[in-house]
Amino acid sequence: MAIKFEILAEDKVTRARAGRLHTAHGVIETPVFMPVGTRGTVKGMTQDDLEALGVQILLANTYHLYMRPGHELIGEAGGLHRFMSWPRAILTDSGGFQVMSLKSLRRVTEDGVWFRSHLDGSSHFLSPEVAVEIQLALGSDIMMCLDECVAYPASQEDLRRSVSLTTRWAKRAKERCQVSGARCQTPAHEGVNAELASLGQGNSGDNSEHDPAEPHVSVPETFVLTPDTGHLAPDTSSSSLFGIVQGGTDQALRRQSAEELRALDFDGYAVGGLAVGEPKAEMYDTVEFTAGLLPRERPRYLMGVGTPEDLVEGVARGIDMFDCVMPTRNARNACAFTSAGKLSLKNACYARDEMPLDPTCGCAVCRRYSRRYLRHLFVSGEMLAAILTTHHNLHFYLDTMRRLRQSLLFGEFAEFHCRVRSHL
Amino acid sequence: MAIKFEILAEDKVTRARAGRLHTAHGVIETPVFMPVGTRGTVKGMTQDDLEALGVQILLANTYHLYMRPGHELIGEAGGLHRFMSWPRAILTDSGGFQVMSLKSLRRVTEDGVWFRSHLDGSSHFLSPEVAVEIQLALGSDIMMCLDECVAYPASQEDLRRSVSLTTRWAKRAKERCQVSGARCQTPAHEGVNAELASLGQGNSGDNSEHDPAEPHVSVPETFVLTPDTGHLAPDTSSSSLFGIVQGGTDQALRRQSAEELRALDFDGYAVGGLAVGEPKAEMYDTVEFTAGLLPRERPRYLMGVGTPEDLVEGVARGIDMFDCVMPTRNARNACAFTSAGKLSLKNACYARDEMPLDPTCGCAVCRRYSRRYLRHLFVSGEMLAAILTTHHNLHFYLDTMRRLRQSLLFGEFAEFHCRVRSHL
Repeated sequence: MAIKFEILAEDKVTRARAGRLHTAHGVIETPVFMPVGTRGTVKGMTQDDLEALGVQILLANTYHLYMRPGHELIGEAGGLHRFMSWPRAILTDSGGFQVMSLKSLRRVTEDGVWFRSHLDGSSHFLSPEVAVEIQLALGSDIMMCLDECVAYPASQEDLRRSVSLTTRWAKRAKERCQVSGARCQTPAHEGVNAELASLGQGNSGDNSEHDPAEPHVSVPETFVLTPDTGHLAPDTSSSSLFGIVQGGTDQALRRQSAEELRALDFDGYAVGGLAVGEPKAEMYDTVEFTAGLLPRERPRYLMGVGTPEDLVEGVARGIDMFDCVMPTRNARNACAFTSAGKLSLKNACYARDEMPLDPTCGCAVCRRYSRRYLRHLFVSGEMLAAILTTHHNLHFYLDTMRRLRQSLLFGEFAEFHCRVRSHL
Repeated sequence: MAIKFEILAEDKVTRARAGRLHTAHGVIETPVFMPVGTRGTVKGMTQDDLEALGVQILLANTYHLYMRPGHELIGEAGGLHRFMSWPRAILTDSGGFQVMSLKSLRRVTEDGVWFRSHLDGSSHFLSPEVAVEIQLALGSDIMMCLDECVAYPASQEDLRRSVSLTTRWAKRAKERCQVSGARCQTPAHEGVNAELASLGQGNSGDNSEHDPAEPHVSVPETFVLTPDTGHLAPDTSSSSLFGIVQGGTDQALRRQSAEELRALDFDGYAVGGLAVGEPKAEMYDTVEFTAGLLPRERPRYLMGVGTPEDLVEGVARGIDMFDCVMPTRNARNACAFTSAGKLSLKNACYARDEMPLDPTCGCAVCRRYSRRYLRHLFVSGEMLAAILTTHHNLHFYLDTMRRLRQSLLFGEFAEFHCRVRSHL
């Protein structure tokens, strides 16, 4: 089963909607926030914790896992779900964003990106096809096309070039997916039988993961036994592929990018190239404009965003999926998100504060620990500081999304939106 | 209620025994291993985790908590139990071991130890009385007397001096306890009524924690509201005090130390000054000899020991309580304890190993994660590596003690002892 997206409710005033995204690793209730598990772990959280927090989908970084421990090793282990013991859904990025960030260590060509490892300086090549192959080995539920995300501010010329290159790369990624037999496009109206039929067709092609002579039978947990090694290989028939719209804050280029990608018919669409330094008003305008260009019946993902306020404003503009390191990274830097704003826990004013992080919060941390204890842990450099604050921040993000979703299902989004705007 | 020790079973061949230690913060089943929570946290573990692991008593370090956040601050918070949200028992050391380790930064006199902080170089003074006062402010269930632990190897002269000084300091610690109204001696045969009566007497003395005009009533959680500030102060009436036997590996000095401390009648007795570099056979001999000098009806605590084997050998020699940083510190250094010995998880041989840390272990980590995943986490420097391995190692230690205790209750200790000796 590849992904299938259902819309359950739409706001009458804004573009906000609530839905369900069906994957081979469970149903994701949208709008959804995806915690970032860069190297196959959300820093400081156990997988039990993540399940208890209600995390339905994680993001993992292709670049980091490719570098260490390597996608072949994870593929041999049966894919990332099995490697890290995570039974729910995983979205992987393409690795492009990290590679582009290497700056002096990379060179972009039509074929792909040559780059040097940040770990040992070794040379590597990432192409649209390689990015798909790595993500297939990881057994990702939702793969992203390799794109070129230009730095902000960018010249019109650079933006135009990146939009065209991103489209050509998206086409190649899609073709690589189809060759592999992965299900990279699922019309939302198709039933399970139609999907199973198409899996059979895909599998009869040039499929390096399976012996063509063997009938392809889906086994529980979506792991398929490869005949040669006896290793469990990820079942790539369940992977879907999203295109990434580029174009900076230029509406004409965003329109061009969205239209070219729509013509390629992806399972979902991401808005990339934002939250890279542009003013917030421009980001919101670009999100609103771009989301309006994307098909209603496919999920829309705003990459790398953002603050709790950004999530609510993104949903109001038609976004279904978000990821950001903010709740986890800020937690490690002693910053807690609360209903009354952010707290800097190293601040001396909390040394004797017996309140929980957020008196209105029901998370396991707020039920048990005080600000004075958390401050002591941060000042002492104790691991538990990051563990507890990460737990609370993720709860805050996920709970914000749950309440937002409820407001949509009950037709009360306008009220929720207004309340959040006045508090955040 | 101060502590009360019951013996439930004694081995017929060795000195091993199983018992119950009753404290104001729950019953401790002995023999017991106490995880080390140096600064009010067991590194990498949440208090929920510790409870789930079945930890009944933690050790906290007086020196570290005195330095940061300070015992006054913790006292204001109602004591360490409340500060760190730990409802079960806490044993505190005296701070002496850390202060003695400062070497060039400290000077030992008859009065006590002058030392400089390892954090900021500021000057401090630790005396037997101050050590008790700090531990009372922390609200410790089991306090330790300030002792002088000499480095190994030590001259006979140094050992003799340290034994005498330790006795004189133990006497002063005991006197300071009695002045404060803390229950620092509980004959095992005394009932609850007798204990309550003695609490009332203690409280009518020079008690800086309570208003003498107020009747002393025990409230749940053992926190007492002090009338002047409204802060919750620890209920020091529940604290007990252990003496520490010194004397290196010299039997005559150990005998002298044990006899002098017995004459002072402590709630329990610790064997100190071991695991400081002496050969293991000498340590075991000294433990056996010293435990034999201590009263049967009081708990015996072997400080800072040790490996899983040391625990079993210590129990066989009459020890009831142990603490050691080994399971937690080794975990952070990628060393896992298993039924088949130690694993160094950074070793390349685990890169593709899909086994759990210990196939015979039922802990939450062995039920869910593979060695290859743990190795990846260690190689990547991820926090989760230490979190999961600490959890497993603590489970291994606690489970070893539980199985050992069961063997004593069922009269099968000899068999257990033999099996462990052949495996560890």
